[in-house]
Amino acid sequence: MYNSQNLIGLILYGHLNIANHYSLVCSVCYLYFVIWNFTRLMQTTITQLFNIQHPIIQAGMVWCSGWRLAAAVSNAGGLGLIGAGSMSADLLREHIQKCKAATDKPFGVNLPLLYAHIDQHIQVLLDEQVKIVFTSAGNPATYTSKFKAAGMVVIHVVSSTKFALKAQQAGVDAVVAEGFEAGGHNGREETTTMCLIPAVAAAVNIPVIAAGGIGSGRAMLAAFALGASGVQVGSAFAVSAESSAHELFKKRVIETTEGETILTLKKLTPVRLIKNTFYEQVQQAETTCASADELKTILSKGRSKKGIFEGDLNEGELEIGQVSAQLKSIRSAAEIVQEIMSEFEAVKKSL
Amino acid sequence: MYNSQNLIGLILYGHLNIANHYSLVCSVCYLYFVIWNFTRLMQTTITQLFNIQHPIIQAGMVWCSGWRLAAAVSNAGGLGLIGAGSMSADLLREHIQKCKAATDKPFGVNLPLLYAHIDQHIQVLLDEQVKIVFTSAGNPATYTSKFKAAGMVVIHVVSSTKFALKAQQAGVDAVVAEGFEAGGHNGREETTTMCLIPAVAAAVNIPVIAAGGIGSGRAMLAAFALGASGVQVGSAFAVSAESSAHELFKKRVIETTEGETILTLKKLTPVRLIKNTFYEQVQQAETTCASADELKTILSKGRSKKGIFEGDLNEGELEIGQVSAQLKSIRSAAEIVQEIMSEFEAVKKSL
Repeated sequence: MYNSQNLIGLILYGHLNIANHYSLVCSVCYLYFVIWNFTRLMQTTITQLFNIQHPIIQAGMVWCSGWRLAAAVSNAGGLGLIGAGSMSADLLREHIQKCKAATDKPFGVNLPLLYAHIDQHIQVLLDEQVKIVFTSAGNPATYTSKFKAAGMVVIHVVSSTKFALKAQQAGVDAVVAEGFEAGGHNGREETTTMCLIPAVAAAVNIPVIAAGGIGSGRAMLAAFALGASGVQVGSAFAVSAESSAHELFKKRVIETTEGETILTLKKLTPVRLIKNTFYEQVQQAETTCASADELKTILSKGRSKKGIFEGDLNEGELEIGQVSAQLKSIRSAAEIVQEIMSEFEAVKKSL
Repeated sequence: MYNSQNLIGLILYGHLNIANHYSLVCSVCYLYFVIWNFTRLMQTTITQLFNIQHPIIQAGMVWCSGWRLAAAVSNAGGLGLIGAGSMSADLLREHIQKCKAATDKPFGVNLPLLYAHIDQHIQVLLDEQVKIVFTSAGNPATYTSKFKAAGMVVIHVVSSTKFALKAQQAGVDAVVAEGFEAGGHNGREETTTMCLIPAVAAAVNIPVIAAGGIGSGRAMLAAFALGASGVQVGSAFAVSAESSAHELFKKRVIETTEGETILTLKKLTPVRLIKNTFYEQVQQAETTCASADELKTILSKGRSKKGIFEGDLNEGELEIGQVSAQLKSIRSAAEIVQEIMSEFEAVKKSL
């Protein structure tokens, strides 16, 4: 799948030198050496699809992933995504233009399809000739052919095998399969990454990008074992130096302990967040059997902006994944990419 | 960690023959051959702890795992567990004695510590000189020293890093860390296997057995990537030929599709089950904000026996994990062990 077998290569290279010293080239070993060199150049279907170095995609996240984060991830050899979910069409255009200026590497835009003025956003993508779009929260059948006709690579985010098959049928190039442990909006079936990835990978014949609970090389390797050929990382990049989230939010996330996030608001759209005063209000409303409309009233105050962008840790909606409990410091996007790749290689060798 | 590198071994063995043909032994390759032979014999800390061939433990499961299943798994090279949770002390004694007669391999007993007549069960374990005990659903500090004094290997099942550290402090030999996707009783924090295993493995210095969502070689490899050195498999063995579950229950489980299980009864003890009429009753009670006592009334009818052992698919409690959606046939315990190990090795080579 991913890559090279350095130790074996080294041993066989050493052997070749010895064999040459005795004027004897062992054909078996030479053949293996050739194969080894070939596998070194091998990429996953995901690195090939996006023409990137590492199969790490930074998730598009409201109030976190503007041009600065996307460009930093792309410059580090991953794929950065501008999260359009918290942007007006004009702001999205500005971010795309700034991202182009900040990197000559491929980057993309994450577009929630349920956006109110979705046509304006789509026009921006077409005007700016964005080459990669990740769609989510809507029906991929509606827009995929339009994006493909414009020459874009189209990926759709799903939370179930059923939706993965629908996305494939709509003509997308790959799917992001996102498990229950992921931060922010999430599926109703609550299927975890461990169960979702092998099921989706077995069902579709397009590449699968795993998401949910992935912020380390260990987790990336686990995702590959399950059948993914790339990973989408959210929480770790949400608290990176280049994330546009408020410093207080970042600090709160890296202090988060196991069990402090919860999937809530299941009567509306399920969302994973850190338990705080806002969550207690939701919880109180649900305990007293509040209606969906009453819950909407609690929500209708720009809660995610308040929490993530403005740093109101009590009244804001602090969207983040379970993996937040493993995050211990604010790092640059490049450090995150490098640390994931190093750990991935080291753990793979130790298995 | 686990294993052997057969392909490399074969190539190097072939090379040794060639080298011998030319009366030349390549010292580099010979050294590697020696190392390879050594690694072939290497086991994980879990296979060493239990003196078993494969690091696969069959979960103790109410109404499924009597002596027949436990002996079959142990005979196949894994570790079988008799699930004491649905047995009287006398019945447990009978199952232990039958298991001893059916296998000369190591096996164990899973003992929920909250059992009403726990002292009687413990006396049976001591009388019968059971060597391995997996404790769950209670405080490991209460009984671990008693078990250790009797020379037993003691493992405790946890759903959080905090409890894993408590179990380690109580003196257990290893922990089972069980994620949200697991069937039956489950933790309140809802941490998934993907997030729980690396956190527990980083926190404790005893071996970690991963549970929740593991029914295939891919998932076992993912668990190893996350830091486990063994896996506990429940759902797949619950529907094995040797499971004492009702045939109708087994059939229902292998027909289960993604999203059909849910973690419910969170006001009492969270449990993952298949959605059916019984679940709808619970759901209805929770929607109308029923108290814990009202929920207990719904439950107080031997629901899990009714569902799993008697095959009442409507009124029974059908406890099973999310991985049930991946199970497609009733296989023998030996087939399950072999298929997991074959896939584990094959996927490991393909990474």
